Amino acid sequence: MLDAPLVLKSIDNQQSLIKIGENCVIGGKEIVMIAGPCAVESAAQMHTVTERLSVCGVQAIRGGVFKPRTSPYAFQGMAEEGIEILRSIERQFRLPTVTEVMSAEQLALLSPHVSMLQVGSRNMQNFELLKLLGKTDKPILLKRGLAATIEELIMAAEYICAHGNNQVVLCERGIRSFDTYTRNVLDLGAVVALKQMTHLPVIVDPSHAAGKRELVADLARGAIACGADGLIIECHPEPEKSVSDARQALSLNDMEKLMVSLGPIARAVGRTMPQAVQAPQLSIVPIRPLVTSK
Amino acid sequence: MLDAPLVLKSIDNQQSLIKIGENCVIGGKEIVMIAGPCAVESAAQMHTVTERLSVCGVQAIRGGVFKPRTSPYAFQGMAEEGIEILRSIERQFRLPTVTEVMSAEQLALLSPHVSMLQVGSRNMQNFELLKLLGKTDKPILLKRGLAATIEELIMAAEYICAHGNNQVVLCERGIRSFDTYTRNVLDLGAVVALKQMTHLPVIVDPSHAAGKRELVADLARGAIACGADGLIIECHPEPEKSVSDARQALSLNDMEKLMVSLGPIARAVGRTMPQAVQAPQLSIVPIRPLVTSK
Amino acid sequence: MLDAPLVLKSIDNQQSLIKIGENCVIGGKEIVMIAGPCAVESAAQMHTVTERLSVCGVQAIRGGVFKPRTSPYAFQGMAEEGIEILRSIERQFRLPTVTEVMSAEQLALLSPHVSMLQVGSRNMQNFELLKLLGKTDKPILLKRGLAATIEELIMAAEYICAHGNNQVVLCERGIRSFDTYTRNVLDLGAVVALKQMTHLPVIVDPSHAAGKRELVADLARGAIACGADGLIIECHPEPEKSVSDARQALSLNDMEKLMVSLGPIARAVGRTMPQAVQAPQLSIVPIRPLVTSK
Amino acid sequence: MLDAPLVLKSIDNQQSLIKIGENCVIGGKEIVMIAGPCAVESAAQMHTVTERLSVCGVQAIRGGVFKPRTSPYAFQGMAEEGIEILRSIERQFRLPTVTEVMSAEQLALLSPHVSMLQVGSRNMQNFELLKLLGKTDKPILLKRGLAATIEELIMAAEYICAHGNNQVVLCERGIRSFDTYTRNVLDLGAVVALKQMTHLPVIVDPSHAAGKRELVADLARGAIACGADGLIIECHPEPEKSVSDARQALSLNDMEKLMVSLGPIARAVGRTMPQAVQAPQLSIVPIRPLVTSK
Repeated sequence: MLDAPLVLKSIDNQQSLIKIGENCVIGGKEIVMIAGPCAVESAAQMHTVTERLSVCGVQAIRGGVFKPRTSPYAFQGMAEEGIEILRSIERQFRLPTVTEVMSAEQLALLSPHVSMLQVGSRNMQNFELLKLLGKTDKPILLKRGLAATIEELIMAAEYICAHGNNQVVLCERGIRSFDTYTRNVLDLGAVVALKQMTHLPVIVDPSHAAGKRELVADLARGAIACGADGLIIECHPEPEKSVSDARQALSLNDMEKLMVSLGPIARAVGRTMPQAVQAPQLSIVPIRPLVTSK
Repeated sequence: MLDAPLVLKSIDNQQSLIKIGENCVIGGKEIVMIAGPCAVESAAQMHTVTERLSVCGVQAIRGGVFKPRTSPYAFQGMAEEGIEILRSIERQFRLPTVTEVMSAEQLALLSPHVSMLQVGSRNMQNFELLKLLGKTDKPILLKRGLAATIEELIMAAEYICAHGNNQVVLCERGIRSFDTYTRNVLDLGAVVALKQMTHLPVIVDPSHAAGKRELVADLARGAIACGADGLIIECHPEPEKSVSDARQALSLNDMEKLMVSLGPIARAVGRTMPQAVQAPQLSIVPIRPLVTSK
Repeated sequence: MLDAPLVLKSIDNQQSLIKIGENCVIGGKEIVMIAGPCAVESAAQMHTVTERLSVCGVQAIRGGVFKPRTSPYAFQGMAEEGIEILRSIERQFRLPTVTEVMSAEQLALLSPHVSMLQVGSRNMQNFELLKLLGKTDKPILLKRGLAATIEELIMAAEYICAHGNNQVVLCERGIRSFDTYTRNVLDLGAVVALKQMTHLPVIVDPSHAAGKRELVADLARGAIACGADGLIIECHPEPEKSVSDARQALSLNDMEKLMVSLGPIARAVGRTMPQAVQAPQLSIVPIRPLVTSK
Repeated sequence: MLDAPLVLKSIDNQQSLIKIGENCVIGGKEIVMIAGPCAVESAAQMHTVTERLSVCGVQAIRGGVFKPRTSPYAFQGMAEEGIEILRSIERQFRLPTVTEVMSAEQLALLSPHVSMLQVGSRNMQNFELLKLLGKTDKPILLKRGLAATIEELIMAAEYICAHGNNQVVLCERGIRSFDTYTRNVLDLGAVVALKQMTHLPVIVDPSHAAGKRELVADLARGAIACGADGLIIECHPEPEKSVSDARQALSLNDMEKLMVSLGPIARAVGRTMPQAVQAPQLSIVPIRPLVTSK
């Protein structure tokens, strides 16, 4: 029996609600959509993305400012400059932001300015980081490691809870297999199992699992049908120009279509999708110096 | 580029329709449901199962008469006696039957009496068997091997087509991974990829992937949301008494609930579910003792 | 506890000796070397290979005449013509031959003419084939499936034994993993485990595991140091011209060097290597054109 | 082509020598043996272990003081108290010590007192940690992640080198697979590939791969035969009482036998084993109670 008293359900159908920012709640009847580019590349990019996504009903914006890259010579993220952009997005659009944290030093920089902190796959068993995050008051998005078992993911969440922070959202994002056609294998069975075993919300990242944008929408629909509480999707104003993971980012048009297509699926499993907003909310706010007079 | 001219799509949105029995077509707008026990155990068992399934709209009945078992000392199937039962079910209920074939000898026995022949995971690259099946006129259900890549599955189907039989339905049924919580990892990304790459219908077996009955329904819904053309589900009148794979079989009640729950999902992706029949078709036939009209 | 009474050791250090041909015994103090090309391509090729290998001490010759190929359009082996070549090699050089069998039909063709029958990875759980081989009197080389557990390999061997033939040699040949640098991952831990658990001889195929010839010799030495009873190695007179698996075949020169290098390793673990023959046994036989003394 | 100019070989047969402590060099003709318990448990335990190992020729002592444990409720290591023990061992026996580091904070504590810092599997892609280690002057033992490709391991080493520290030793310690008989699958093919591709020394940890002590010695011999530059082995005065990984630790007697058995293997591949010392170096020091000369 797994020794995870803080993460495993103690009573039937117990479900935690995790709040990010002021209005977004993960784990309730409404599906939560988190979207945005792999990496924050510029203020203009983030503004374009957020303006469009906020209109379709996306409730939180993702964007990496510290990027874990296989090569030390690859773009490592905009760091402080990127944090400033996230901060400005959060204030301007009143949407919570989600970004990855990889060390104590980054935590100190990010914590005052973003709404949710992500632990990436590579750090799922970076226990010293998990302990630190247990001492913050921020909600944590904990991604499953590439070769982590379901039980190890639960125990990683238990680390955060045991150190004082029970605002944890679990995320299935694909595991490593022998097949190279998809980047990773999206393990929706793990989503079903985690929903049954734990009271924490479980969301799905179909973008990293698929690694190919043409597979993302179908997997997103499958995830909601399986019972996921939300999705985190990579999208980009010009996907082919993305500095990282270009092959898997959706265009903003495709993102909008995906949002629409998820409504009937959500309803089919007793959930709701966030409402799309009719007109752009913030079209009069000038960016720097981006002019989006659409 | 994969050399599979008979299996890969040559034109956009090309879709083959594979007919099994007289009325069941896989690959069209209607989702096809194949269900039944892991193994044919008795005439009474098959009659009970089929009577109930036929009422909920299930279009084809599965049941193994030659069972590939890890141990030579485990139950190996009812063989000829089981074929007789399948034959009687097919005649009595006018529902096509699906069963596994593993050798030339079994093929000769099964071919006159069942509607669809299944190649199991362990034989996906039993090329001599594939060649033989290419020379039959029966539709083939080709299950993905436990460690077969998407491309190898396509090439296995190409074997059957290249030897003369293009009535092939592909089946994703979970792949091997490091995680032991689920029996296998259901790879719905492969379903999405196969639907995009090939013109063959693709169905999903969530029972073998999950290995635990409480995971089956959610995965079944996920599979349909991802675009699968149908499902093959293990169910049993008394699951805990099943001679094999007892842990993953649904009860007939759960099977009926699953059928109902799939309707909205199917419609959400532009498909339909088969109609449930209001009254049992064969209610006057006494179940035990079974009188099969040979 | 594994139900494999015929394969698991019943007493400590019990070790079966399996004889192939007239003089070759696998499982004794002497390491057994099986070598040859992936596929039999011509009489000249087989003659060149065997003449050279027999001089270095290789005790048995491999060569496929029925080839399991991923694509139906790839070379499928020389079939009957290849059997004739193997037969002539066996008579001329008095060396046993090993070749793969995939069906009852092939078994009938091969059985009278070759010394040892190989079950390939893809057929390790082709139970109908295993049952047939259980009824022959030929020694069987049973290769581990690409995703077969150690226990499943043992149970596959148990199938052959339970049907009457206990002349089984197990072969580790690499398993599937996420890494693509090597073709498969050679699992020498399985060799150690199998030697401890079973009384059957265990040999290793480093060629298929490595998939790259420059890795083969080191892995071969590692296998013997781990306790393997022998090796099966792919080699070719002109590796780059091999019709299949060209990338992994050793040249005959490299094969000879490998044989020499294995001597000290074998002795370090209390084994011996076969003696190299000083002068070519058959140097007067002209190689091209080949005159086989039928 | 892999962009790892600091790790990949630029000229043939280039080989880096990495010095740990005053006398131990990894990558030369002499095999380097690192051994000790999974975790430092007490001064007495470490003294007993080191006294015995130093006599058999072991050149460096391992022992974790910060332990990465799956559960937050499991023993997390002796921390500062353990560092003090390692320091005393290093002074008393003049043997270098190797221990795992997981964060900047631990690095500051460990750096002045141990000879080599280990990056564990779970942190192989903890890039912030790798960057920090690139700025130290300590040799680094970089263990391969459980699902890390060979190329990812090379790029992780490149991170350390690119940040200024080229004293990196690579370590293969088993990868995750579907098989549960061994804890992980020791990938000796990766060792062969890494020796060919990089100029860094490569050592092997058969203990974590095997997960069962009865498999360790054979795998250790296999690793040396494959070309590894050394081994890191878990051993314990009373293995069954080990606070962690008890199932895989060798007894000190078995460790001594292993050292002896490795000599002929090392010589068979042109290497040497360290000399065993005739008489215990420190036999006058009473073991319990331990008086450490601080």
